[in-house]
Amino acid sequence: MLGVDPGLTRCGVGIVDGAPGTPLRLVHVSVVRTSPDDDIATRLLGVEAGIEAVMEEYAPDAVAVERVFAQHNVRTVMGTAQAGAVAIVAAARRGLPVALHTPSEAKAAVTGNGRADKAQVTMMVTRLLRLDVAPRPADAADALALAICHVWRGGAQARLDAAARRAVRPTTPRQTGSRP
Amino acid sequence: MLGVDPGLTRCGVGIVDGAPGTPLRLVHVSVVRTSPDDDIATRLLGVEAGIEAVMEEYAPDAVAVERVFAQHNVRTVMGTAQAGAVAIVAAARRGLPVALHTPSEAKAAVTGNGRADKAQVTMMVTRLLRLDVAPRPADAADALALAICHVWRGGAQARLDAAARRAVRPTTPRQTGSRP
Repeated sequence: MLGVDPGLTRCGVGIVDGAPGTPLRLVHVSVVRTSPDDDIATRLLGVEAGIEAVMEEYAPDAVAVERVFAQHNVRTVMGTAQAGAVAIVAAARRGLPVALHTPSEAKAAVTGNGRADKAQVTMMVTRLLRLDVAPRPADAADALALAICHVWRGGAQARLDAAARRAVRPTTPRQTGSRP
Repeated sequence: MLGVDPGLTRCGVGIVDGAPGTPLRLVHVSVVRTSPDDDIATRLLGVEAGIEAVMEEYAPDAVAVERVFAQHNVRTVMGTAQAGAVAIVAAARRGLPVALHTPSEAKAAVTGNGRADKAQVTMMVTRLLRLDVAPRPADAADALALAICHVWRGGAQARLDAAARRAVRPTTPRQTGSRP
């Protein structure tokens, strides 16, 4: 499960292995950075390259991206939306399911409180993944929180979505086996 | 010159040939559409596929994308920013220079008035490209207006930008050109 906390200056990227009811494991965490001195095209290309590299190396089975709201600083939010779009389309291009979760959902998943502060989120991510060192900067911890959020919420939701897609879309017959 | 009026539901795509002081020529115009019933990943992938197809077929030498401001409907604007990001990164991936122009700049370029309405923009695009039929819908005309705007503004600006890049960035020695 790849979590992406989108941003142009710092884009958090974290991969977590696990399933509801089983221990979580940190697979990878990093921050893709681009320079504010570069133009938007160069920056978005940098974000794409960073995310592509992680997807190429770790082949995650799904991607969770933070859902962006336009409530804060307009300039920042546009960059976040653009970086998020790059992450979403990079995942979709590989046929990976993409889920969006709000920051509140991610915070609530790992701390129990949708309004938890960054320190609390980082502390819980560190604890849940049994890390010796807290992931830094906050964007890295946020990406891991998103991934954890989706591991815990995603299982049931993914099955519902898949069922809904099967119900409304024409599908081609598949070779995959039956589940008892 | 490819102009893109980004959007999830309708993304205008127009290609214009020309240079400042020479007649303009319409090369291509179309609208990439995605369904509001689809999820954001599917929609952004559809926008990307549509723009990629046009770039593949016509090999434009530069891309102008409408600059998005977050002043209007927040939900629409986020989708516009995301579709714009997909267009920007698709162009950058091919090494094409990307320019952003505001709607006012595009309107002013083709009508002389940055606050011109859609009918006026469409009329002037039709006239400047000597078309028998006005491009529809408005997104198509807007994409062409952006392309025209950049043909007219872009020449000098592109040379300035290239000079600035040469001035500030370390470059590797190249084989091109003569040495006096």
